[in-house]
Amino acid sequence: MIKANDPTLHSWIEIDPQSDFPIQNLPFGIFQTENKDPRVGVAIGDYVLDMCELGRRNFFELIDLDPNIFHRPYLNDFIALGKPIWRAVRNRVSELLRNDNTEISGNSELIDVCLVKMSEAQMLMPVKVQNYTDFYSSLDHAVNIGTMIRDPKNALSPNWKHIPIGYHGRASSIVISGTDIRRPNGQSKAADADAPVFGPCRLLDFELEVAFITGKETRLGESITTDEAEDYIFGLVLFNDWSARDLQTWEYVPLGPFLAKSFASSVSPWVVTLDALEPFKVKGQVQDPKPLPYLEYTGSHNYDINLEVLLKPEQGEPQTICNSNYKYMYWNMVQQLTHQSSNGCNIQVGDMYASGTISGPEKGSFGSMMELTWRGTEPITLADGSERKFINDDDTVIMRGHGERNGIRIGFGEVKGKVLPAL
Amino acid sequence: MIKANDPTLHSWIEIDPQSDFPIQNLPFGIFQTENKDPRVGVAIGDYVLDMCELGRRNFFELIDLDPNIFHRPYLNDFIALGKPIWRAVRNRVSELLRNDNTEISGNSELIDVCLVKMSEAQMLMPVKVQNYTDFYSSLDHAVNIGTMIRDPKNALSPNWKHIPIGYHGRASSIVISGTDIRRPNGQSKAADADAPVFGPCRLLDFELEVAFITGKETRLGESITTDEAEDYIFGLVLFNDWSARDLQTWEYVPLGPFLAKSFASSVSPWVVTLDALEPFKVKGQVQDPKPLPYLEYTGSHNYDINLEVLLKPEQGEPQTICNSNYKYMYWNMVQQLTHQSSNGCNIQVGDMYASGTISGPEKGSFGSMMELTWRGTEPITLADGSERKFINDDDTVIMRGHGERNGIRIGFGEVKGKVLPAL
Repeated sequence: MIKANDPTLHSWIEIDPQSDFPIQNLPFGIFQTENKDPRVGVAIGDYVLDMCELGRRNFFELIDLDPNIFHRPYLNDFIALGKPIWRAVRNRVSELLRNDNTEISGNSELIDVCLVKMSEAQMLMPVKVQNYTDFYSSLDHAVNIGTMIRDPKNALSPNWKHIPIGYHGRASSIVISGTDIRRPNGQSKAADADAPVFGPCRLLDFELEVAFITGKETRLGESITTDEAEDYIFGLVLFNDWSARDLQTWEYVPLGPFLAKSFASSVSPWVVTLDALEPFKVKGQVQDPKPLPYLEYTGSHNYDINLEVLLKPEQGEPQTICNSNYKYMYWNMVQQLTHQSSNGCNIQVGDMYASGTISGPEKGSFGSMMELTWRGTEPITLADGSERKFINDDDTVIMRGHGERNGIRIGFGEVKGKVLPAL
Repeated sequence: MIKANDPTLHSWIEIDPQSDFPIQNLPFGIFQTENKDPRVGVAIGDYVLDMCELGRRNFFELIDLDPNIFHRPYLNDFIALGKPIWRAVRNRVSELLRNDNTEISGNSELIDVCLVKMSEAQMLMPVKVQNYTDFYSSLDHAVNIGTMIRDPKNALSPNWKHIPIGYHGRASSIVISGTDIRRPNGQSKAADADAPVFGPCRLLDFELEVAFITGKETRLGESITTDEAEDYIFGLVLFNDWSARDLQTWEYVPLGPFLAKSFASSVSPWVVTLDALEPFKVKGQVQDPKPLPYLEYTGSHNYDINLEVLLKPEQGEPQTICNSNYKYMYWNMVQQLTHQSSNGCNIQVGDMYASGTISGPEKGSFGSMMELTWRGTEPITLADGSERKFINDDDTVIMRGHGERNGIRIGFGEVKGKVLPAL
């Protein structure tokens, strides 16, 4: 269907086989270089293809779009054009980068203008986030958390297997990979204390998540079906939902997580399109009990994407502490978005919907420190001999993700953030 | 301090003494008339003062602002200019409308252009809502709800008197007064049922709230103090936080209200400035236990503003079903905003922070049907003889608010919405 995914494609740009960004990927992002405005780019190998420069040179003249649509500080206007346009643009970029095409490759001045080394580009937030929802859709994660903080015999709340549980999050504090994360202050209360105290979070955690971004709006009062949901989804990013566990424990009853989450979430810069991820679709686990009819779906909507979390102490190398996979989702994206709109809530262009922590069945695949160290009772020992129950000041947390099929690797790059001491 | 509040002021425009919009109020909104773009207006009596037309005629030339700042579909750009500018503009409007000023009153052509009858203006959303938080700050409301759905002996969660409890809400579905509200579909489960069902909400409710809008941003990682908070607040609107009680009961554990709220919230069109509300400041109730130091405050930050809810059946007159007051807030705005930023969460221009349902101590002052009918066990009888446990299809809910001091009435107008049957 999508020629841009053809595994036999090759580019005239030399690309390392271990790169996340072969010609079959072509994710979109927003970048900036010295003396130039923020603009849309496409990742290819170690380069960013400057879509703004290509647009103004009429390389997309056969597609029905404003040639200045890539001269924007966010992807929102571009993705609002709809799936047929995203597809046409991605296919056209694929054509331009193909080893038998000379429109760019035959023009060394043009190459200089429109191919920017990734190392020289500053990546910015890919979208202006309009609304942000965080789901809670990994069964292993929900069971782990429920076992630890509620009741091992009733780890799941009664609604969990009927509803893709989620909550509204804070859009303003979603930041691009590389942004330092300030350890939050907040209220917490020890189990045996009479009263809470206010001070730096002591149990700072990450949550390994993947978020999808919508590119099509609904009107208030409308709902969409599981069959329609994919048409609303532009693509995916890695998402670190930083969490303050001690704040969360004290504040979250009865209205849910609030300041334990809203101090920051970090996202990876490149939005990998659903089209590029098509080869990685796999069946999800059997849902028992059977979901209500509005949540039933046809086809496969889970994705076999390896996810990895690394922790880097201030002095030291990044060390893998978790290997998980996006396929471990009990509720898939299509069900999540359908549920979100089932009450008539309007979907907007640039909404971000995060998966919730993605944990697999084994301990090494748990997607948070809370689970990896079992609430701090089983610390992780790092290569430098130091121990971690949660995240320390000056630690950097790095998340990576990629799928691989037929020798083609489609990746997300990474999302990273370094924790600074509380103010 | 603020000459625009002087009770001896009079306008050359004739204003009914019962109007919400005397010269001492001057709230800002966005309106539209035939063949003209959406723009900023100021309410005065039965008229809208067209700020866009005044701006282009240089009536604000002594104030440091772009004269086209009022030619916008939202107030965000104007309020981003900061409190000194809002004040200067409001003072200048007061001067122009004063009975001894002839700059407008002496020019009948100009009057025709810049004074629009309210009945001919369509009001639009005053701000593009960037982020939306809903607090839960009325003690009587929290006790009522806790008594009904949890435990009468432990009605308040242990954190309630330490934390201004709140949760992130959905910004996309906040709509302007007059917008019809579609009854949502969703999951609910009867207490004695084995499994949930999906269908139209059966327990549709309103929540009487007041929301404040921020006009100044903080940077991520920064916090503000209770002394600084007022500088961040532009003004207030009435807020109806429509709620689907049956959906809420089934979904809200463990992560809080989600689809029970996100189908719609309605706001009144005129943003009444904090400055205009200054005369109505009153002391809040004593907070015991004493809040943690970051939540302590000086001065008065509650407001004596009468709030009223009316219900209008399809065939019938509006009938008052609740008289409450904004002064019944346990946690005030200044504490709410300080708490929101205490973890470093960044505040943006155009954020909306709703109070939570405002109930007083007596039954007639409860701010939701849930409380007024005590979960449906004590129905309200309307003038037409019909009963209401919750809100029926084709019912219209109207909320009004005003304060009165020294014979001066400062009001909000109203927020109303009619409920349409589920799709």
